[in-house]
Amino acid sequence: MREQSVALCRPLLPEDTVMQPMLDVSPPKWHLAHTTWFWEMMLLREYQPGYTVFHPDYAFLFNSYYNSLGSRVNRADRGTLSRPPLADVYAYRAAVDAAMQQLLDQAADTLPPLFWELFELGLQHEQQHQELLATDIKYILSTSPLAPAYFNEELKIKTAAAPQATWLPVSGGMHRLGFAGEGFCFDNELPRHDTYVADFELQNRLVTNAEYLEFMAAGGYTDFRYWLGEGWDLAQEQGWQAPLYWVQHEGQWHRFTHYGLQPVNLAAPVTHVSFYEADAYAQWQGARLPTEQEWEIAARQFRPDPAAGTFLESGQLDPQPLPANADPTQCHQLLGDAWEWTHSAYHPYPGYQRAAGALGEYNGKFMVSQLVLRGGSCATPESHIRLTYRNFFHPDKRWQFTGIRLAR
Amino acid sequence: MREQSVALCRPLLPEDTVMQPMLDVSPPKWHLAHTTWFWEMMLLREYQPGYTVFHPDYAFLFNSYYNSLGSRVNRADRGTLSRPPLADVYAYRAAVDAAMQQLLDQAADTLPPLFWELFELGLQHEQQHQELLATDIKYILSTSPLAPAYFNEELKIKTAAAPQATWLPVSGGMHRLGFAGEGFCFDNELPRHDTYVADFELQNRLVTNAEYLEFMAAGGYTDFRYWLGEGWDLAQEQGWQAPLYWVQHEGQWHRFTHYGLQPVNLAAPVTHVSFYEADAYAQWQGARLPTEQEWEIAARQFRPDPAAGTFLESGQLDPQPLPANADPTQCHQLLGDAWEWTHSAYHPYPGYQRAAGALGEYNGKFMVSQLVLRGGSCATPESHIRLTYRNFFHPDKRWQFTGIRLAR
Amino acid sequence: MREQSVALCRPLLPEDTVMQPMLDVSPPKWHLAHTTWFWEMMLLREYQPGYTVFHPDYAFLFNSYYNSLGSRVNRADRGTLSRPPLADVYAYRAAVDAAMQQLLDQAADTLPPLFWELFELGLQHEQQHQELLATDIKYILSTSPLAPAYFNEELKIKTAAAPQATWLPVSGGMHRLGFAGEGFCFDNELPRHDTYVADFELQNRLVTNAEYLEFMAAGGYTDFRYWLGEGWDLAQEQGWQAPLYWVQHEGQWHRFTHYGLQPVNLAAPVTHVSFYEADAYAQWQGARLPTEQEWEIAARQFRPDPAAGTFLESGQLDPQPLPANADPTQCHQLLGDAWEWTHSAYHPYPGYQRAAGALGEYNGKFMVSQLVLRGGSCATPESHIRLTYRNFFHPDKRWQFTGIRLAR
Amino acid sequence: MREQSVALCRPLLPEDTVMQPMLDVSPPKWHLAHTTWFWEMMLLREYQPGYTVFHPDYAFLFNSYYNSLGSRVNRADRGTLSRPPLADVYAYRAAVDAAMQQLLDQAADTLPPLFWELFELGLQHEQQHQELLATDIKYILSTSPLAPAYFNEELKIKTAAAPQATWLPVSGGMHRLGFAGEGFCFDNELPRHDTYVADFELQNRLVTNAEYLEFMAAGGYTDFRYWLGEGWDLAQEQGWQAPLYWVQHEGQWHRFTHYGLQPVNLAAPVTHVSFYEADAYAQWQGARLPTEQEWEIAARQFRPDPAAGTFLESGQLDPQPLPANADPTQCHQLLGDAWEWTHSAYHPYPGYQRAAGALGEYNGKFMVSQLVLRGGSCATPESHIRLTYRNFFHPDKRWQFTGIRLAR
Repeated sequence: MREQSVALCRPLLPEDTVMQPMLDVSPPKWHLAHTTWFWEMMLLREYQPGYTVFHPDYAFLFNSYYNSLGSRVNRADRGTLSRPPLADVYAYRAAVDAAMQQLLDQAADTLPPLFWELFELGLQHEQQHQELLATDIKYILSTSPLAPAYFNEELKIKTAAAPQATWLPVSGGMHRLGFAGEGFCFDNELPRHDTYVADFELQNRLVTNAEYLEFMAAGGYTDFRYWLGEGWDLAQEQGWQAPLYWVQHEGQWHRFTHYGLQPVNLAAPVTHVSFYEADAYAQWQGARLPTEQEWEIAARQFRPDPAAGTFLESGQLDPQPLPANADPTQCHQLLGDAWEWTHSAYHPYPGYQRAAGALGEYNGKFMVSQLVLRGGSCATPESHIRLTYRNFFHPDKRWQFTGIRLAR
Repeated sequence: MREQSVALCRPLLPEDTVMQPMLDVSPPKWHLAHTTWFWEMMLLREYQPGYTVFHPDYAFLFNSYYNSLGSRVNRADRGTLSRPPLADVYAYRAAVDAAMQQLLDQAADTLPPLFWELFELGLQHEQQHQELLATDIKYILSTSPLAPAYFNEELKIKTAAAPQATWLPVSGGMHRLGFAGEGFCFDNELPRHDTYVADFELQNRLVTNAEYLEFMAAGGYTDFRYWLGEGWDLAQEQGWQAPLYWVQHEGQWHRFTHYGLQPVNLAAPVTHVSFYEADAYAQWQGARLPTEQEWEIAARQFRPDPAAGTFLESGQLDPQPLPANADPTQCHQLLGDAWEWTHSAYHPYPGYQRAAGALGEYNGKFMVSQLVLRGGSCATPESHIRLTYRNFFHPDKRWQFTGIRLAR
Repeated sequence: MREQSVALCRPLLPEDTVMQPMLDVSPPKWHLAHTTWFWEMMLLREYQPGYTVFHPDYAFLFNSYYNSLGSRVNRADRGTLSRPPLADVYAYRAAVDAAMQQLLDQAADTLPPLFWELFELGLQHEQQHQELLATDIKYILSTSPLAPAYFNEELKIKTAAAPQATWLPVSGGMHRLGFAGEGFCFDNELPRHDTYVADFELQNRLVTNAEYLEFMAAGGYTDFRYWLGEGWDLAQEQGWQAPLYWVQHEGQWHRFTHYGLQPVNLAAPVTHVSFYEADAYAQWQGARLPTEQEWEIAARQFRPDPAAGTFLESGQLDPQPLPANADPTQCHQLLGDAWEWTHSAYHPYPGYQRAAGALGEYNGKFMVSQLVLRGGSCATPESHIRLTYRNFFHPDKRWQFTGIRLAR
Repeated sequence: MREQSVALCRPLLPEDTVMQPMLDVSPPKWHLAHTTWFWEMMLLREYQPGYTVFHPDYAFLFNSYYNSLGSRVNRADRGTLSRPPLADVYAYRAAVDAAMQQLLDQAADTLPPLFWELFELGLQHEQQHQELLATDIKYILSTSPLAPAYFNEELKIKTAAAPQATWLPVSGGMHRLGFAGEGFCFDNELPRHDTYVADFELQNRLVTNAEYLEFMAAGGYTDFRYWLGEGWDLAQEQGWQAPLYWVQHEGQWHRFTHYGLQPVNLAAPVTHVSFYEADAYAQWQGARLPTEQEWEIAARQFRPDPAAGTFLESGQLDPQPLPANADPTQCHQLLGDAWEWTHSAYHPYPGYQRAAGALGEYNGKFMVSQLVLRGGSCATPESHIRLTYRNFFHPDKRWQFTGIRLAR
């Protein structure tokens, strides 16, 4: 699993790995170091007797946002870290991996339950940064006037038109939501709790680029009536006319992708839209976005097959069209391909408790001003996602693989 | 009702009425004109045949945020409107009032239902701006180094200590929420819908200044563990050490009020706190803020007596302490005194529909990034508030009379 | 002289007198109070035994930039001073004038020379603020969408075309510059010193609006080759296409003036141009701006008649065209009408000494990053100007009556 | 000469070469590419028939500020150029060098005079960027919390105290200034022209760190009376307490240098001060900064020996103390070690003409808002400097090796 982070950075030059072209994006070298810092600070420092940190300054350099763990480089200054060199960060990774291996070899039997909790969290944390690596690298390369491709191979586009979307009825009533059972979950998926929703309908697939182009052609970006006020103001101020990464090229819409600049694939799900755009699209359609409760209830009912989704492991880093012959009575693309904006604030579940110490800063302190997204994307590791998984972003964010599913 | 707006401005100088010391605050002269513009644009222009507008430029000058009604002065530039003079705005008010009176005298019997809907909305709209007048005037006067008092008379402080707060159990289960019955409500209180909540407890009164001072003394503003991340960052950046309007004066905390600078009244409810501060206080207490559903369920159960609350009509513009002998089994201060932050996002109720035209911009377009507040304040007209009323502000706002009630 | 400041504000509403629509502009009420503060702080407080200040807070409220005299309201916050009311400021003026009168009546014979220096400085200082009152009022009224006129009467435009400009030769060589003789001068006009310049030519009048329109028509605002780099960048960023206050109205260029919006008078001198525009115009003409040394040498040679210039006392507040029959061998408009940008930095003369105390902050601390302007404008009191007078502004400023004279 | 640019970057990692930690600093990779672009655009494209550019996008990527040569990457975005890789930029340099060599080999005899002018300009331009490489690299490394050293070897500090400064009289009168004779000069050193200055005195060496520490100890950074107004405001806003790169470390002042963090060498000239600090120091001393005319007159009189100065070629990148036995009747350190702020605006000399085309953008368009510096520094190539050389920076800049010499 640790190797996956390194693999993602292999196509990059050292020069690429230090870039921070906007505040949300972290330099890849920083991701490689910060994930390693997590293992060192949370596990080795605590559980390996006599452990000496790899470098005394790294605690400061590679802390992300843990006030519990001391001061740190400002987020906005991560792009000024030319040093330590990328090579040193790889050495840091190797040293920490070796120390972890040694710890596991020597003491696996005697390590306490909290160690194993943190161990699992370290894995999950690394996976989250793998998704960020994929999306941050895309953004970094996109800012280059040279529009360089991350992948050497050609993008193979499946051009068969997506099947017409259908509306699937979902039964409301009382439902028990949140994580249950064996295995890992984040604290924000807990506790399991009861909720009531009315009956509703959900579309059986994600909104496609073809559908979104219709919205654009119908003046979606120039008619304030579809928009939330602050979304409209932002769209005007920044001159939005299409999703992030879309550019007109010789009269045709193209997208910047990990394969360089590519024509928009009409059949594929639209991505890189903000919540504002997703909501405006839904308004234009006379529909709405689902709540996270509705999404989870539908997902539990339709039991999606993870194997059908596009995840990080596929190495495609691009959402895939639904096959033309997909079953219209089934709900597709719930897992993978694109994160689905819900119209639910990222707030604590009833009865939620923040953990003590640094862990308490992992999720709880972000529970305001953000919206929940569900289902994972083509940049999410498949083993990382669950039906109860709650991702969250501010409504203006567009650099993740964020898409749209309609409800009514 | 229209006279109340004028009465609120009577203690002001013309110089006061043009000030916009921060973006959230509008100049009192603008409030006086904008509320009049509402009657002219929404009713007279539509329903009075041959009506000629008072001044051709006012449609542009005094539109607030209605894209449907054309372009307008930028919100940030309201403080540059030295002209028209205050006297002209009073003349504008008189002319529009006279035209409305004439219309009602002549045509009350034949006016269609939509007219009466807009008429009611005009009254409600004016009341909302009366609350804003009270709070914006307070902010404007507070920015003067002279700290001038709005009221000439002395503030009479009730100093009896507030009774100890009690926890009141509230039964959860299925509840039907939202407005029902005769009379006016805003579209955001509709439709009536079912919801489920678990059993919970609510404190029987608002948090007092005395209690909030304990939080401050215990390091509430210097310990990140109690805070939401973006609240902590903001508090650090702006150097928050107390609620808005609090200053140390000769070693004692004072507040700027409509009566000038006054000692903090320990028994009175704390106000002028942001959501971040309210939430941090609750965390420090090992409690939490209620959701808006919990608040409404409790309010329906305890049936507060509006006569017991402090409203605009009392002319006090300051929240009042709960009498020491208040019934500990009753839930007090639900209506009036201070708006209560809830931990609920201001999102549409299930089944909510935006109205068409300009009315559709009244509430619906603000349904993102804000939090619901309930119950009204000492600056709210008593006839304006309801148990189902949903107010909303961004979590950083402090210039309204916003307070705290704990749940668990 | 003191009455002139009040007279300038007489056409204003109280609402107008508190506006600060940009940082360079101060509210008229502030000017009225600050000039009074100067008399109180510099003279009464020092020379009138037992003098009690009018209001203890005014020392803080109405200090402009004198660090020697304590802290003060930030310049950017002058527009938040709704209080004290305009009426109080007039009372302040009356009280300080009365106290000054009393002091002069009682002690004129015994006051020391420094008093009389400060007395003269107080008069000069008040005149400087009278010019600022005229230009700040113009800017304030211009920001109103109602474009209100300051004067009630009509603007009488002399439309006779200006005579063709001629080039006047001026002998260079050694010249002694700076103030000499009786009467008042500012410290920045001293000491008298020798300078050498080569022979040069100067145009015999200011550049007219007609000539400037040719520059505009020839693409002056779209060809970077005429511009200084930082001027070009600013012009692009702010979308400059004409001098400040110029707007297209029904296909014709108009200017906002103290008489409201008026057609551009082709024969009148162009004003409200920045140094960048003045320099670009000169480049386009294949000429240049004079240095301040050249300007003063030419002025000494041509001995302009002040009576021929337009000054504040004329009550016109608009530069006037040169009569068609003006003598082509004479140098016109050197005094009054429009300040003339020179290509000289506002630096100390050789041997310049800053005064001690607050007076040392009057001029010396501004001697960097600004350019010298010479000759006074239609808003300058006639008795205030001299051939050696050095005004100074940053190169981007346009709200003063700034014009262009060519040299080569 | 071209090799020198590469040599300066040899100690850097690829990660270092893309950093732009502030607007004034350009990434080293950009410097390497831009200097190459200059040869390609100005010479090869014009004079080598059939020349094909190395890469079609480089004209856009590596233009600095030449509007004549088309659009370009915004200065603020130079730090986002991860691509092309450093290796490609080295290949670009090699290809352009080879093409230049070929052109010279084939056509040296037939190339027109303008070619040779541009050839000389290309060399001078490259040298200017070598100085910027040295200072930008220093700034980039200084922003790293690891404070990495550029040089591997130890800094050898000459600790002998500097000799007491003496005042040298210089005869004023008429002087002919500006470049004359054979060899290269920039257009801003022309034309040769007469000027008059009064007699003055100049200190015989640069101000030392020891002297500057006295200024600091005497409250130089906390007493507004020594400061120009806008310098004082900036110093307060940014919290200046010492020159750039100075930090307190274990109770002693250290400087960040190309050798990492080093104790302040008392005997060495103070550097990395802004014009504001230089001027405040002079005020505190009761002296002043020289004008550029005075500096040049003195330099012509004292005929400094370039061999005595510290230049880029010495490989020290740190100004050196004056030997204790230096002749007190001679004027030392005029060339090399530190640029000397003059109190002269960077304006055109009398009779200055901007060149046509791109060359006209080299110097002329910067002639406003900046101050002249004279004499070169320890980062200037020795063959690049002349007594008539005019460097220029805004008064707030501190990242160059800028120092102080007093006049009176």
